[in-house]
Amino acid sequence: MAVLQLFDKLLQFPLFQGMSRDDLEIVAGHTRFGFMKLGAGKTVVKAGDTCNQLYFLINGILKVRTYADDYGYSVEEQMAAPNIVQLESIFGYYQRYTRDFVAQTDVNFITIDKEEVVRLTEDFLVFRLNMMNHFATQTQKQMRQVWNRQPQSLEERVVRFLSQHSYYPAGHKVFNILMTRLAEEVNDSRLNVSRVLNDMQYRGLITLSRGKIEIKQLERLLYTK
Amino acid sequence: MAVLQLFDKLLQFPLFQGMSRDDLEIVAGHTRFGFMKLGAGKTVVKAGDTCNQLYFLINGILKVRTYADDYGYSVEEQMAAPNIVQLESIFGYYQRYTRDFVAQTDVNFITIDKEEVVRLTEDFLVFRLNMMNHFATQTQKQMRQVWNRQPQSLEERVVRFLSQHSYYPAGHKVFNILMTRLAEEVNDSRLNVSRVLNDMQYRGLITLSRGKIEIKQLERLLYTK
Repeated sequence: MAVLQLFDKLLQFPLFQGMSRDDLEIVAGHTRFGFMKLGAGKTVVKAGDTCNQLYFLINGILKVRTYADDYGYSVEEQMAAPNIVQLESIFGYYQRYTRDFVAQTDVNFITIDKEEVVRLTEDFLVFRLNMMNHFATQTQKQMRQVWNRQPQSLEERVVRFLSQHSYYPAGHKVFNILMTRLAEEVNDSRLNVSRVLNDMQYRGLITLSRGKIEIKQLERLLYTK
Repeated sequence: MAVLQLFDKLLQFPLFQGMSRDDLEIVAGHTRFGFMKLGAGKTVVKAGDTCNQLYFLINGILKVRTYADDYGYSVEEQMAAPNIVQLESIFGYYQRYTRDFVAQTDVNFITIDKEEVVRLTEDFLVFRLNMMNHFATQTQKQMRQVWNRQPQSLEERVVRFLSQHSYYPAGHKVFNILMTRLAEEVNDSRLNVSRVLNDMQYRGLITLSRGKIEIKQLERLLYTK
């Protein structure tokens, strides 16, 4: 890949934003990048795989599938380029992916090995700060959630369940979940949950079929009230 | 403070663990440390204060107070040395404390300015990795919570509420919360919540008074079932 084109690709990612042209030239010249192309339907990583490199998605769309800890339900959503596959898995106590990532279209990645990532955090102040700011922000957002007032209506609790289980807070989602399980999760009866879901279907927000809730655009659920 | 004594103090903190004696000597010799002593009752930081330095608590006990976003309830707990005051506040999008920290006994701190912290992450690989591993671990733990099966009994939901709102997952806590609000938070009736709390009081796990739930040891709630 031509150096200039590589610059453009890297600059799409927040991790590299704010780096000077000189720094980027050094990064491009001294970092061992991998380039990977996968056809639609191919698996990129599976939940449980060790994370020893970062995948920068530069073209195409990934399908992301996440399972509940007891495999009682799962969620499918999409992730479009530019995006990094689970950046939070490369450090910390659980250095494995927790979701399946499958190519939905043909996809292209730039990959960087962990040791190269560590070297980038050493050599470039901006990269290091971007990394630490990213992690701290994620932590702050997550920690603050429990201090929000809990929603009082059942519909709001259902919507909160759906949004809390989405990796990306917008777009198309498919929840593979039985109504009895959703009722347990939001602490209400199956009948009430069914009523609320059917009303949401009537309003065109979701589509129901057995064991499945399809959401066309999550953002519509969050902002139409 | 003598250099050797400073070593010992720093080595108590996970951020410095794994650093070589040589590195620690450089840290001790080249870092601008502050030393701070506060009497019992004095405020260290308040929620909303800007975080531009790290407070390493090396002696004494702090009282930590956290408020719900709407100030509808608050939680008081204790934090003993060695401990760092809200490490996650020094980077990221919200670089302020989100809790009040007050000296409960006489307390001593080592303080390090943010620019010095940034320099430590630049100069020492181990410090930098400790920092990034800490943040990534916090993120991973927080992100995983929603994928656990929700508790089904009211008592379990109450216990989960209490533990999710504790900064440290053990020790003495005081929840300043009305039963009606707790009932809203766990999505049940005031009467049922009252029944469960009174039963827990009867078993010696908590002490109730108006608008207040005192927990002697949170770990007993979590592991006595």
